Amino acid sequence: MSLLVVGSVAFDSITSPAGSVERVLGGSATYFSLSACNFAGVQLVAVVGEDFEEEQTKLLDSHGVDLKGLQQERGKTFQWVGDYTRDMNAAVSLETHLNVFEQFNPQIPESYRQAPYVFLANIDPVLQRRVLEQMERPKLVGLDTMNFWISSKLEELKKTISMVDLVTLNDGEILQLTGQRNLLRASKMVMDLGPKIVVVKRGEYGAWLFTPHGHFVANALLLERVVDPTGAGDTFAGGLMGTIAGENSVDEQTLRRGVVNGSIMASFTVEHFGVSGLVDLNREEIRARLQDFELSRIYEGRPLPQKKNG
Amino acid sequence: MSLLVVGSVAFDSITSPAGSVERVLGGSATYFSLSACNFAGVQLVAVVGEDFEEEQTKLLDSHGVDLKGLQQERGKTFQWVGDYTRDMNAAVSLETHLNVFEQFNPQIPESYRQAPYVFLANIDPVLQRRVLEQMERPKLVGLDTMNFWISSKLEELKKTISMVDLVTLNDGEILQLTGQRNLLRASKMVMDLGPKIVVVKRGEYGAWLFTPHGHFVANALLLERVVDPTGAGDTFAGGLMGTIAGENSVDEQTLRRGVVNGSIMASFTVEHFGVSGLVDLNREEIRARLQDFELSRIYEGRPLPQKKNG
Repeated sequence: MSLLVVGSVAFDSITSPAGSVERVLGGSATYFSLSACNFAGVQLVAVVGEDFEEEQTKLLDSHGVDLKGLQQERGKTFQWVGDYTRDMNAAVSLETHLNVFEQFNPQIPESYRQAPYVFLANIDPVLQRRVLEQMERPKLVGLDTMNFWISSKLEELKKTISMVDLVTLNDGEILQLTGQRNLLRASKMVMDLGPKIVVVKRGEYGAWLFTPHGHFVANALLLERVVDPTGAGDTFAGGLMGTIAGENSVDEQTLRRGVVNGSIMASFTVEHFGVSGLVDLNREEIRARLQDFELSRIYEGRPLPQKKNG
Repeated sequence: MSLLVVGSVAFDSITSPAGSVERVLGGSATYFSLSACNFAGVQLVAVVGEDFEEEQTKLLDSHGVDLKGLQQERGKTFQWVGDYTRDMNAAVSLETHLNVFEQFNPQIPESYRQAPYVFLANIDPVLQRRVLEQMERPKLVGLDTMNFWISSKLEELKKTISMVDLVTLNDGEILQLTGQRNLLRASKMVMDLGPKIVVVKRGEYGAWLFTPHGHFVANALLLERVVDPTGAGDTFAGGLMGTIAGENSVDEQTLRRGVVNGSIMASFTVEHFGVSGLVDLNREEIRARLQDFELSRIYEGRPLPQKKNG
């Protein structure tokens, strides 16, 4: 079933201990789409400027991403300059030029409005609701956000969260959102706002899934080399939501497979700058990593023995 | 099969955000024994002073810990004063009085020398070797250490590590020991020193097991309340080594069960001050937590779908 994503498409310039790149394709909706397209058909809604070129359009199109919802406006594409040389886990934003993204007013094409699965990537929570108003009874809506909206539009954000089924947040964000210091309690509080499914992204430590049926922990893959963490969370969400849409199911085991697929896809993203870890990926590489992951999880439980006394 | 542990027995005074306790029973060999005794018969070798009372001896004895190797010397028992109010993950040591531990010269009783499983808890690497010299062909020797020995006796430590089969280290220690910045590469380097089994303890993020057959990740349990992390690593090692000794096996699946049992036992330790989370534990509580953990791991993989194109 098809999966609609609304988010940003951007040009990123990134410096990390591994080197740097200039004006490469980025943005939450881009990472999400290039990840999700491995599992489901993706419809992208975003805005770009006049500087967005055919090359980038072709790249997304060649991965099967439906671009009817990609609005092109007068002005420049969203541009971000980030630096990871101090801390690989937290970019320093050197420049953020919203450009056409500042006036983004997501228009959902008629043919997208019945999409059963929807992901509201990190944009203004008021705009996230405007997307929902245009949709016709989706089966599941997922949402991502960031510290900026938690600080500046907390009540709007809570209102939007109360209308969705699934949220993805990283550890810092969920603690900030709930004012808690413990992730388990914080996750329960987010569920109390409305969503039945809460996913806590913990970067190199993996991801936690909370549902009414219990919890599940997917460790992140062990990698020898991390080049650029930009887009890891969006890539993760793409694998998760893509799995849900591809299987057309929100069963517990579908969600768990989604969290695992999200972790696998994110592992490819962080090994390269920008989206190049996703673009050049073939299905054998995904399969191999999935198999490796499954082998590393094999665990045969045994009943606890009787107490031994010396 | 029996399991010999050589380490410290101490009196700890601990302050954490949850409160404080004075002069409670602690030490690496204590936590290890009270954890391992749930899975195997434990023989303890350590030194205490004249202030060690019958109450403490009885407590260990009542858990089936063999105390023939507990030497009592003139002087006071090792005493430690630690504070977690600043950082729950790193104690500030306010006082460390080695007392009789300073002259500790581990004597392995004749009846212990054929113990097939041996754990060298965190003591001087030269003393760890002295223990090994007294043993008769153990099947598996495990070792723990700390940053103090890595800084002050690196060559001695590497020599000792080269003689053992299994090492447990936390993330900071393994990076310091190897000079690496990546845990996967660091673990391979430790295996190059000799041990076939490397376990990286990551506190609230769980533990990684590396063997010649692959790797395994056990997430730590999700806890609503952490009171006192003292002894979590020793408790973990007790569950791991206890499982190996109890099953009398070093098979991959035994090791994985060991890492899981270690994580479960550590979850009880950190919920209470000192060893009280281990002392008052009944087997139903261990079973329930093990079952909860196993449920949270259930994962039914599926082959990757064919690529969807919109």
